[in-house]
Amino acid sequence: MRPLDVDSLNPALKNVEYAVRGELAIKAEALREELKNPDNRLPFDKVISSNIGNPQQKGLDQPPITFTRQVAALMEWPELAKLAPNVFPEDVVQRAHELQAEIGSIGAYSHSQGVPFIRKNVAKFIEERDGYPSNPNHIFLTAGASVGVSLLINMLINSPKAGILIPIPQYPLYTASLAQHSGVPLPYLLDESSEWSTSIQSVEDAVKKAQDDGITPRALVIINPGNPTGALLDASTQEALVKLCEKHSLVLLADEVYQNNLHKPETHTFTSFKKVVSQLKSPIPLVSFHSISKGVSGECGRRGGYFECDNFSEEVIALIYKMVSVGLCPPVSGQIGVDSLVRPPKPGQASYGLWLKETSAIHEALASRTHTMSERLNNLPGVSCVDSPGALYLFPQIKLSKAAQDAAKSAGKAPDAFYALGLLDETGICVVPGSGFGQKEGEWHYRLTCLCPGVDEYVGKLEKFHRDWVEKYGEA
Amino acid sequence: MRPLDVDSLNPALKNVEYAVRGELAIKAEALREELKNPDNRLPFDKVISSNIGNPQQKGLDQPPITFTRQVAALMEWPELAKLAPNVFPEDVVQRAHELQAEIGSIGAYSHSQGVPFIRKNVAKFIEERDGYPSNPNHIFLTAGASVGVSLLINMLINSPKAGILIPIPQYPLYTASLAQHSGVPLPYLLDESSEWSTSIQSVEDAVKKAQDDGITPRALVIINPGNPTGALLDASTQEALVKLCEKHSLVLLADEVYQNNLHKPETHTFTSFKKVVSQLKSPIPLVSFHSISKGVSGECGRRGGYFECDNFSEEVIALIYKMVSVGLCPPVSGQIGVDSLVRPPKPGQASYGLWLKETSAIHEALASRTHTMSERLNNLPGVSCVDSPGALYLFPQIKLSKAAQDAAKSAGKAPDAFYALGLLDETGICVVPGSGFGQKEGEWHYRLTCLCPGVDEYVGKLEKFHRDWVEKYGEA
Repeated sequence: MRPLDVDSLNPALKNVEYAVRGELAIKAEALREELKNPDNRLPFDKVISSNIGNPQQKGLDQPPITFTRQVAALMEWPELAKLAPNVFPEDVVQRAHELQAEIGSIGAYSHSQGVPFIRKNVAKFIEERDGYPSNPNHIFLTAGASVGVSLLINMLINSPKAGILIPIPQYPLYTASLAQHSGVPLPYLLDESSEWSTSIQSVEDAVKKAQDDGITPRALVIINPGNPTGALLDASTQEALVKLCEKHSLVLLADEVYQNNLHKPETHTFTSFKKVVSQLKSPIPLVSFHSISKGVSGECGRRGGYFECDNFSEEVIALIYKMVSVGLCPPVSGQIGVDSLVRPPKPGQASYGLWLKETSAIHEALASRTHTMSERLNNLPGVSCVDSPGALYLFPQIKLSKAAQDAAKSAGKAPDAFYALGLLDETGICVVPGSGFGQKEGEWHYRLTCLCPGVDEYVGKLEKFHRDWVEKYGEA
Repeated sequence: MRPLDVDSLNPALKNVEYAVRGELAIKAEALREELKNPDNRLPFDKVISSNIGNPQQKGLDQPPITFTRQVAALMEWPELAKLAPNVFPEDVVQRAHELQAEIGSIGAYSHSQGVPFIRKNVAKFIEERDGYPSNPNHIFLTAGASVGVSLLINMLINSPKAGILIPIPQYPLYTASLAQHSGVPLPYLLDESSEWSTSIQSVEDAVKKAQDDGITPRALVIINPGNPTGALLDASTQEALVKLCEKHSLVLLADEVYQNNLHKPETHTFTSFKKVVSQLKSPIPLVSFHSISKGVSGECGRRGGYFECDNFSEEVIALIYKMVSVGLCPPVSGQIGVDSLVRPPKPGQASYGLWLKETSAIHEALASRTHTMSERLNNLPGVSCVDSPGALYLFPQIKLSKAAQDAAKSAGKAPDAFYALGLLDETGICVVPGSGFGQKEGEWHYRLTCLCPGVDEYVGKLEKFHRDWVEKYGEA
């Protein structure tokens, strides 16, 4: 019997990298275990997982929206409505009855594309948001946005010479899925000097380079609001990007999972690509992704989301259906989460007041924390940080001295990974080094979430670590 | 702009076929819609989806286990324990508290491999079942068994010349995943004449044929209890299969999702491959899959399951971890379903009596229905049906006359698909033709589930349709 070793496995998987749950995150888990030992000699008393946008995790404890959970509890055990009649608001009971009539048991497989009734509700949500029609039969409910992205990349990569344009920095799901499906990542650089904006020229340059290298670009990925940057696209850039897709026959993959995380709504608003494509009457195939994991819902663990296909032929929709049917159906618990997201309580309904209070508190806390954190990070020597107008993250740039870079080299680490490991060891704060997202040659960043409740203590730790670091390795 | 057509997409996906949710199932959905029209002229008043093992679906309505759902309701909205204090049994409240302490919010991402506490409980369940140690760090919780199977196949197929041995008939997830990941299916025939038993010689023949064709067999798939056959392997066959894997350096993929669906427990018992491999001290890499969708749990919609790896190096485990981390985590709702499956109420606990009553009723109904149905099908002219000792299905063979085969040919259908379409059109019963699972050249079957509650009415329709068919096309 030959043993099964990594070299005998699919070589494409070796190249998959996903830093958000990589070396740093694994070490953070180990430290969390170590803290349970009363004799540990760690210089901190808790590990703060700022590596991932996971609002409800222990220690961050962003509360779930009560309405969503009350409906879910009744879906789990419908008899509760009778057994505890005074516990649930009227609109919750009514909503659960309606869903039960449509779905039946949440323990049954649903339609592979997602419960038809919920897809109709998603289509209404999109129509109200954008003012253009949406077809429920071209909407696929998913277990979070990630599986949809991965499936679309699997479909679009039709040869090892096919590539997909991705922003740098990017959310590493894109490079990971491309590696898994043997596609070529075609990076285009975002511009940090103008709030991480997207330059049409830089996308055009990437298309040109791909063509020169004999690679066919199949799709353009846009993350709006940006991850890890938090940037929001303006209308003229969105239009130009759609035209660029038209010119080069690209599918537009619009990752819009942070569309409801807007910290400066007076100046930085969100417009969906669905709306732009509809306004321009553009024929480009568009896939828009949304999720219940982000926004103020934060229901990551439910695994719910959807994607909408525009300008897709019925033949291609049937192919997508076939592929999702092999996985049977998305989790029904996530599907009812999507229903809550697209049909929140309305004014006049029993749950509206609490819903408004809860969601406003989360919006305000995120906006204020993001602003405070970026301001204080900007005051540190050698740190510059765009004050993100959207999403859940900051992506500060850190200048690292020659001495720091040499120390990293001796440790066999990229300089920003070395910095992030130091931060974790000293403070218990886990961030993701910029190399996990991609960055300009010779620059260093890290991504941290703006989810930690005690912002003073949290930023205080970041500040102390950075000042000690500069003390030790000198200014860059 | 070139339109996006199917020919421009990944050619591997074209070859994916999944009959369980294919042509018949899509037509059944359309008929279900048509029934809502009061002026429809359909010869039946309901569609019965016997194409898929989905116990809790509308019309079948197998009730969920109350304990599982009560715990889940408290996980969704923990305040319920205080707000409705007399509604939940004591052990349910205690279990929910324990899970909340370990998991925190079910709206948070968990460890990518699954909640460590739940993995420990799975390991204990396996240890108690088999009497051999199980390592929680080599267990991966999943969104149902399917995603695990697909990932393992993606890993093992390291070139287009790599193949996997699959039983014929098989559950089409295997051929679908192989097509998606460009691997070669290496079929070995099960023996219908001896209750669909597995012949070592037939597997050896398939290995030999693969080698002659220049294909490297990487793994052997065993479905036990069988799907669609319901067959159970005996101990000597299991041992011989393990030795065969050893001889040919094959990974054993043991699909054991029906391990708790045993209709003749006096004569047909289940032994896990984990136990056999441990007893033999075999070094073969083994992956065993289990699920909450089947058994008496029937919680398909939660999407929960696990796989355990044995004789896997830490390096390969790390690779699997990396791959699952890109998808973040399995649905937490499914994970708590797994916890319920492996930790049901025990004698002496408040919920035990109801749990025993509910699970016994489901076991008995399934066993009795399976037996009755196979007996009555066997009485039909040209039909022979193994009385399945396990799983949720029957897989009757139907002899089709020359006239029937000609009619099928004119309709452009395989004869068994033609039969199944006729059955659907006449009775509203949706089954899956044998060609969807694979069968011996020139033989015809269909798979139907044994989940329909009104067995008399249900089999009555099957009988009438078949007799009319024989009337029309003659005996074979």
